[in-house]
Amino acid sequence: MSKVAIVMGSKNDLPNMKGAIDIFKNFGINFTVRVISAHRTPLEAASFAESAETEGFKVIICAAGMAAHLGGVMAAHTTLPVIGVPMACEPFNGLDALLATVQMPPGIPVATVTVGKSGGKNSALFAASILALNDPTIASKLKDFRIEQAENVKEADTSVRNEFSS
Amino acid sequence: MSKVAIVMGSKNDLPNMKGAIDIFKNFGINFTVRVISAHRTPLEAASFAESAETEGFKVIICAAGMAAHLGGVMAAHTTLPVIGVPMACEPFNGLDALLATVQMPPGIPVATVTVGKSGGKNSALFAASILALNDPTIASKLKDFRIEQAENVKEADTSVRNEFSS
Amino acid sequence: MSKVAIVMGSKNDLPNMKGAIDIFKNFGINFTVRVISAHRTPLEAASFAESAETEGFKVIICAAGMAAHLGGVMAAHTTLPVIGVPMACEPFNGLDALLATVQMPPGIPVATVTVGKSGGKNSALFAASILALNDPTIASKLKDFRIEQAENVKEADTSVRNEFSS
Amino acid sequence: MSKVAIVMGSKNDLPNMKGAIDIFKNFGINFTVRVISAHRTPLEAASFAESAETEGFKVIICAAGMAAHLGGVMAAHTTLPVIGVPMACEPFNGLDALLATVQMPPGIPVATVTVGKSGGKNSALFAASILALNDPTIASKLKDFRIEQAENVKEADTSVRNEFSS
Amino acid sequence: MSKVAIVMGSKNDLPNMKGAIDIFKNFGINFTVRVISAHRTPLEAASFAESAETEGFKVIICAAGMAAHLGGVMAAHTTLPVIGVPMACEPFNGLDALLATVQMPPGIPVATVTVGKSGGKNSALFAASILALNDPTIASKLKDFRIEQAENVKEADTSVRNEFSS
Amino acid sequence: MSKVAIVMGSKNDLPNMKGAIDIFKNFGINFTVRVISAHRTPLEAASFAESAETEGFKVIICAAGMAAHLGGVMAAHTTLPVIGVPMACEPFNGLDALLATVQMPPGIPVATVTVGKSGGKNSALFAASILALNDPTIASKLKDFRIEQAENVKEADTSVRNEFSS
Amino acid sequence: MSKVAIVMGSKNDLPNMKGAIDIFKNFGINFTVRVISAHRTPLEAASFAESAETEGFKVIICAAGMAAHLGGVMAAHTTLPVIGVPMACEPFNGLDALLATVQMPPGIPVATVTVGKSGGKNSALFAASILALNDPTIASKLKDFRIEQAENVKEADTSVRNEFSS
Amino acid sequence: MSKVAIVMGSKNDLPNMKGAIDIFKNFGINFTVRVISAHRTPLEAASFAESAETEGFKVIICAAGMAAHLGGVMAAHTTLPVIGVPMACEPFNGLDALLATVQMPPGIPVATVTVGKSGGKNSALFAASILALNDPTIASKLKDFRIEQAENVKEADTSVRNEFSS
Repeated sequence: MSKVAIVMGSKNDLPNMKGAIDIFKNFGINFTVRVISAHRTPLEAASFAESAETEGFKVIICAAGMAAHLGGVMAAHTTLPVIGVPMACEPFNGLDALLATVQMPPGIPVATVTVGKSGGKNSALFAASILALNDPTIASKLKDFRIEQAENVKEADTSVRNEFSS
Repeated sequence: MSKVAIVMGSKNDLPNMKGAIDIFKNFGINFTVRVISAHRTPLEAASFAESAETEGFKVIICAAGMAAHLGGVMAAHTTLPVIGVPMACEPFNGLDALLATVQMPPGIPVATVTVGKSGGKNSALFAASILALNDPTIASKLKDFRIEQAENVKEADTSVRNEFSS
Repeated sequence: MSKVAIVMGSKNDLPNMKGAIDIFKNFGINFTVRVISAHRTPLEAASFAESAETEGFKVIICAAGMAAHLGGVMAAHTTLPVIGVPMACEPFNGLDALLATVQMPPGIPVATVTVGKSGGKNSALFAASILALNDPTIASKLKDFRIEQAENVKEADTSVRNEFSS
Repeated sequence: MSKVAIVMGSKNDLPNMKGAIDIFKNFGINFTVRVISAHRTPLEAASFAESAETEGFKVIICAAGMAAHLGGVMAAHTTLPVIGVPMACEPFNGLDALLATVQMPPGIPVATVTVGKSGGKNSALFAASILALNDPTIASKLKDFRIEQAENVKEADTSVRNEFSS
Repeated sequence: MSKVAIVMGSKNDLPNMKGAIDIFKNFGINFTVRVISAHRTPLEAASFAESAETEGFKVIICAAGMAAHLGGVMAAHTTLPVIGVPMACEPFNGLDALLATVQMPPGIPVATVTVGKSGGKNSALFAASILALNDPTIASKLKDFRIEQAENVKEADTSVRNEFSS
Repeated sequence: MSKVAIVMGSKNDLPNMKGAIDIFKNFGINFTVRVISAHRTPLEAASFAESAETEGFKVIICAAGMAAHLGGVMAAHTTLPVIGVPMACEPFNGLDALLATVQMPPGIPVATVTVGKSGGKNSALFAASILALNDPTIASKLKDFRIEQAENVKEADTSVRNEFSS
Repeated sequence: MSKVAIVMGSKNDLPNMKGAIDIFKNFGINFTVRVISAHRTPLEAASFAESAETEGFKVIICAAGMAAHLGGVMAAHTTLPVIGVPMACEPFNGLDALLATVQMPPGIPVATVTVGKSGGKNSALFAASILALNDPTIASKLKDFRIEQAENVKEADTSVRNEFSS
Repeated sequence: MSKVAIVMGSKNDLPNMKGAIDIFKNFGINFTVRVISAHRTPLEAASFAESAETEGFKVIICAAGMAAHLGGVMAAHTTLPVIGVPMACEPFNGLDALLATVQMPPGIPVATVTVGKSGGKNSALFAASILALNDPTIASKLKDFRIEQAENVKEADTSVRNEFSS
């Protein structure tokens, strides 16, 4: 059974991670949603990461803003793939979280996706692409998603083309 | 057999990707190194990505600088995990490549690692963490790497502590 | 017959490109509006660009936000002039799209105009300046536009000068 | 006869514009190289731009650094297409010149290409793409350039692939 | 008679320059408010700057946003002190206007004050400090302004101190 | 008796510093709130800093926005620990205040905390950590605060985990 | 006995922290220098921070570059004052480390000093200002340092004034 | 007698201010060069600014890097025009000094010129433009300087035009 963890540094990050939850539900991927703070509950962060592999998790998604250390702290305590989603908090709109997440020193990577809500969705799609390597159902769901997504663009194309071209 | 592709937008990116090559060699992971430009050889880029899965690739690493579109173009043509390594070219030292790689719109993620040389190494470690999910040998190599890395820090700690503390 | 394509990466970009549509209507320039995504419909993007010249297009305007690859992908598949309009999406307000559009590596240029709505209008004026090189009617419309624009500034000048000077 | 002007704000910009000169020579495009400063010789700037069309110029390329006003000043005095090349001067490495060039207000566009030396080359390629619309020889040269450029990437690909793949 | 010109690139900048108008009214300094665009009415810009000294102006304040060339264009055509006020337009909130105003190349300075509305007020105070060098009435008004301003801070200090200290 | 000063450059900064006031009240730490401007009441700034130590203050917290000199000016006139809180004013959202506060030259440090409202709270917690070194009551309050804070995260964790996990 | 820990994320940070070592030696403050990585030796990081208070440490200085999590990780495991020194590594010259250090979320502050070498020195001076609150010898050393520092500036002033004034 | 003060925060800023010294010598403007630190010699800074007017100074030029408070501190203690020259120190290349100088809050302006060496020269030219308002000799020197400067550009234009045009 494939399992993904969605870990947020704060409950406030939940709206930005709804896109991930939706993807996992659509794809039939089991997931756990957690609120664990690298700074306010550091023992839980370390303990979660250390036991994640034996708990059956395959991928850990970490959403955090500002000095976003969550992904790095998780990655330090596990060799599972850790995906970081920088949250776009005030006042720097995620530039701080992006750099704090992606600029991991050599040796401990955190794979970073788009800042903010789009990153919530993209983190799940990336996790799915990892799981798809050994799960034909997920692989098939992912390809279907791509096709449906392309169809939506094509529909928009047709409607815009007809309505606005000279 | 696990296979990773290291694709660079230019031959100049090679020194920054040597760290990835070294990791793969050490871990016994088969890899192919390619120079494919999203802009100068777009047909090759699309064709490579489209056939990558059937060619047996599991992960594609894309290193590119400036308006770094390589990861995004690859990801558009495959559902395999695509890891982007932003190159730190003059004059913007990789800020352009970072944003052009990580800020993928919702639907097509590129998982981005550290900008520059550190990203070369980290991209391979992240690819290894994906492959390790289904390959105990790689999983074991990765854990050994972590231990060895920690040992190096501890050695530095001992030497600095003894030499410089009051 | 002169023809310009306005290609958007998403239907959401339409309000920002209304200024371009207005300019083309005013100038009597034929245009086609399309929604084509570099990432979600990459085959359409490549195919559109490859056939654009034989379809009679003279200039391609590409509006895209975030990791804005649309202009670069189009430019990779055609030798027609490609004008990029970076969209100012949250959270980075277009800095990502600007760098992802303008920082094309040597060999494949994308001519970039102002970020956001002002860029929508400016992309059409720049396209008109290209078409005007071989179309005296457009050349004349462009000069008239400049005069009218200057008149508007002069009117504002007169009204402000009279009302606010001491 | 097609004619392009390469205008630099300072003689120091010459090395960055050598790539443009080479492209024009290779493509057989006539060009004039000028040093005109928007700030130090403003009358010459205005006068050059105002007479450029009657002098037979089709495109004006403007290279300038820092508060790079040259493109904007030229564009204010002509309806010819103006291409801006932001120079990467110390201490801001061209971020100032990029924003001062690309962020033209609605009504007067300056089409901006890559910052620095790559922009020198790209400005000429973009100018060629404009001229190619009505000059089959240039169109053909441009397509040949693309093919040759792709060949170079493919050669690099072959050599790297053979030497570095596992 | 001392005279200051407040020149704006667009009528939209007026609210940000109201602070300057207020200062000049309070200090009894004669001023003229103009809307002149470096790009849309370049002849007026050059002509205004060239005749400003003989018209009796002592200082020119230029407010402009985006690729804010107005101060630089004015300064190129006069040796009067030119003060630049960068406007904070979307999407870059004035970073573009700041760099386009302050980063003048050596030889033609534009003295830049705070970005946005605060800069409107500060431009007038700086102009007053110049005029005060030879006008004891203005010098006296400026010193009074400083005292009044300090009193306001002290009043706030007293009220906050009493209400919020423990 | 431990005493902390909360000094703000403007009364407008008060809402951002309410978090500091709350912490001090909760911890039973005596504090004084002041409005002193480095620029508008420079004599008061210097005089306050010079006498702060003899007045019994142990730590000075300085909140200021834009060209935030308050912390630096205070630190220049005292050897007490000075904590800077950069305010996130328009248009640069605190990047200016952050750099103007943290980038003190060697010799006169200002210890800088998070930009904006979060920094208000963090400045008080950091001041408390200093006072706690010699005050077991504060030390105990600080440890309690940490525990309570962790409990809040754990509660959020439980609720999110139950409601949103698959 | 007062004790300060200087913890570096990498041995490479040592030259930037030499200024701190010098200050502590000059002031007669006992210190320990450590190399502990938040990511490569996370257990050591947590363990060091957790026992720091009982080991007698009063202040912890953390120097780290890139996604600089060291200060935050330490602060999460102790209530001692933690001072962060962002290292200026390539390619972002410390902007990443600054934001990753200073932008701690509300609840767990890291007091951040100047980026790079100047920050090394300033971290020690700030630590000394904390220790000085309860150690008259250090307080006196700090005041002497300030006087000497001022004397050096005054000497430079005299020499420059005499040599370069007209 | 006109007098200008060139005040530097550190002797290291001298090479960047040599351009100002040269301008003043050429224009026959009396000047004093000082090293005064806003942070290390704050009493001297305040005292210098307070007495500057009665000492006969007309303009104060302040060169400082990093958290460049010198201009703001000077401006707080005098109503003379204060010109700020942000120095381009490592690691932020003057972005910190620019924002710390130009972003003065409303009420106390510092007129900021180009960052770095170019700003040294431009500060003197701007000071000269202020003095020229009441000194025909300086006014004449300034106009001559402009003409000579234009001649240099025209010479470069002729040589480049002849050598490099096709």
